[in-house]
Amino acid sequence: MKKLRLNPITKRWVILTEEDFSFDKINNVQAQTKLENCPFCLGNEAMTPPETDADRPQGGEPNSPGWLTRTVPNKFPALEDNLEKKEEKEGIFQKREGVGFHEVIIETPDHYKTMRGLSQEEITRVIKVYRRRFSFLTKDKRFKYILIFKNHGLAAGASLEHPHTQLICLPIVPKRVTEELDCTKEYFAKNNECMFCKIIEEEKKQKDRLVLENEDFIAFCPFFSRSPFELTILPTLHQSDFRKITDRQIDSLSSILKELFIKLGNVLGDYPYNFLIHTTPINSDGKNYDFYHWHIEFLPKLGEIAGFEWATGGYINPLLPEDAARRLNTT
Amino acid sequence: MKKLRLNPITKRWVILTEEDFSFDKINNVQAQTKLENCPFCLGNEAMTPPETDADRPQGGEPNSPGWLTRTVPNKFPALEDNLEKKEEKEGIFQKREGVGFHEVIIETPDHYKTMRGLSQEEITRVIKVYRRRFSFLTKDKRFKYILIFKNHGLAAGASLEHPHTQLICLPIVPKRVTEELDCTKEYFAKNNECMFCKIIEEEKKQKDRLVLENEDFIAFCPFFSRSPFELTILPTLHQSDFRKITDRQIDSLSSILKELFIKLGNVLGDYPYNFLIHTTPINSDGKNYDFYHWHIEFLPKLGEIAGFEWATGGYINPLLPEDAARRLNTT
Repeated sequence: MKKLRLNPITKRWVILTEEDFSFDKINNVQAQTKLENCPFCLGNEAMTPPETDADRPQGGEPNSPGWLTRTVPNKFPALEDNLEKKEEKEGIFQKREGVGFHEVIIETPDHYKTMRGLSQEEITRVIKVYRRRFSFLTKDKRFKYILIFKNHGLAAGASLEHPHTQLICLPIVPKRVTEELDCTKEYFAKNNECMFCKIIEEEKKQKDRLVLENEDFIAFCPFFSRSPFELTILPTLHQSDFRKITDRQIDSLSSILKELFIKLGNVLGDYPYNFLIHTTPINSDGKNYDFYHWHIEFLPKLGEIAGFEWATGGYINPLLPEDAARRLNTT
Repeated sequence: MKKLRLNPITKRWVILTEEDFSFDKINNVQAQTKLENCPFCLGNEAMTPPETDADRPQGGEPNSPGWLTRTVPNKFPALEDNLEKKEEKEGIFQKREGVGFHEVIIETPDHYKTMRGLSQEEITRVIKVYRRRFSFLTKDKRFKYILIFKNHGLAAGASLEHPHTQLICLPIVPKRVTEELDCTKEYFAKNNECMFCKIIEEEKKQKDRLVLENEDFIAFCPFFSRSPFELTILPTLHQSDFRKITDRQIDSLSSILKELFIKLGNVLGDYPYNFLIHTTPINSDGKNYDFYHWHIEFLPKLGEIAGFEWATGGYINPLLPEDAARRLNTT
């Protein structure tokens, strides 16, 4: 049974998966490159749990080939949905059952197609899956936050090579999100404006960290970049909740992502990266999150989290975001 | 000029070192194994900036061989001490000069001696250097926090193989420390007891996560371990400030560390790890931190920080701390 445990010293939750931990597993994690063994490849549909969503424009049976995207429960979920939200105390320690849901969105049938290789149409299709699953899973009132993220490359934590995104439904609002909500709420109360909107205004004015901009989205290397080539992607019009993204916005977003992946590819090649969406909590008893602005964080994995980062929660970045933006813009 | 930049969305500081960033550097970082090129080896004293501290029981000139430990300014410091604490604003963005100080404590003249190979006497000597440098550097009133940490192994962020600890003086109190201070202060106000003392009591009662204990220190796999074999080491008697550690406590600590490194070595071999000391801020205008309890965090590097961790600030740990403790205790 998966357990969530709270660190009372930092108010951070840890998920203890009680997997069958072995050093062999850690030493031998390898990107799965043999297609006949890849559970995300066409024809291997039986190797995953039954699908929860798929794009099958030509029709066809669930869990058969013929799909363009396919969403399945994670075979090794970090959390499980067949549990109650039960809390227990052991003295000062607090734990609860690991209720949640963990899905994998297979972005393409093509094992070797990295996000960089996806067409704009394909990216649009994937973002629509994000929105669809997000809206559907919100209905389970036990879930308080839905996280969409992607690990690309072994060094960024991807254990399977075939392009995929992960979606985790959590019974708690995670610390990082609470942190962002607290700071932006405080800012809104003081200034009567959204902090993210203000940052967009500032980045547009200062210009030297801007990378891409279109009608609906903006992408820049943030002033406070944690690592070389970190990117923030924001809807330019104030929007708190990712689920509200419109079809038109999805087109704009996939257009900017397509261009971004080309630029990044020119500078970084096929580097490992993490990609995540931060949006408002769900099922929060009518709480108002208008002060928040959903966004995408893109973090190429170009260094290690080491003692300094563990100890401080801060980061040492050897490349100015102004220089990173310049390098991306001159290719 | 090194800059500190604040992320207003999370209130975290980033250090931008403006090094000459290149991909070659990232791709070719290698543990330095050729002794004649190692700046921390005997006879190579001229390869480092002039030393600030050394153990030379037989006497001898500074910056010559004959030392048992040697402390030198970092040749590539994350922060610099020849700056003023000057703040600047650029719209919503806040930056300040990267005032600070960054030292390297070379733990032994022996390039190949890992902490696991150090004798108890040698560990005692190293901890005394920590205390000495800590007390000395506190005198610079520009510094608000002194961080001592150690990265061992390339995967844990060590770019040099020769055993060394790093010490960074910061002009700010880092977020992670503020987080711990806030939570433990709140707990103290409610319960009139130190949260860490309570955790010690609980770990002693529950027993199944205990690894080592002697007169003055206790070591256990914390209830909320972030990664397999994470360890917390605490002084059993309430003590807020690491600088107050007594000679007797240092003997007890080196004894427990020596035993711990043997146990860890038996289970993990020569695994990469991060080691850090969390203690009270310095030069904080008479603020009282009695509610805090200094401690050591030991984190073997057995996985990657990926999208989930970046997005949530939480962790997924595949090994229960009870199982980790059992494995350490049965070798």
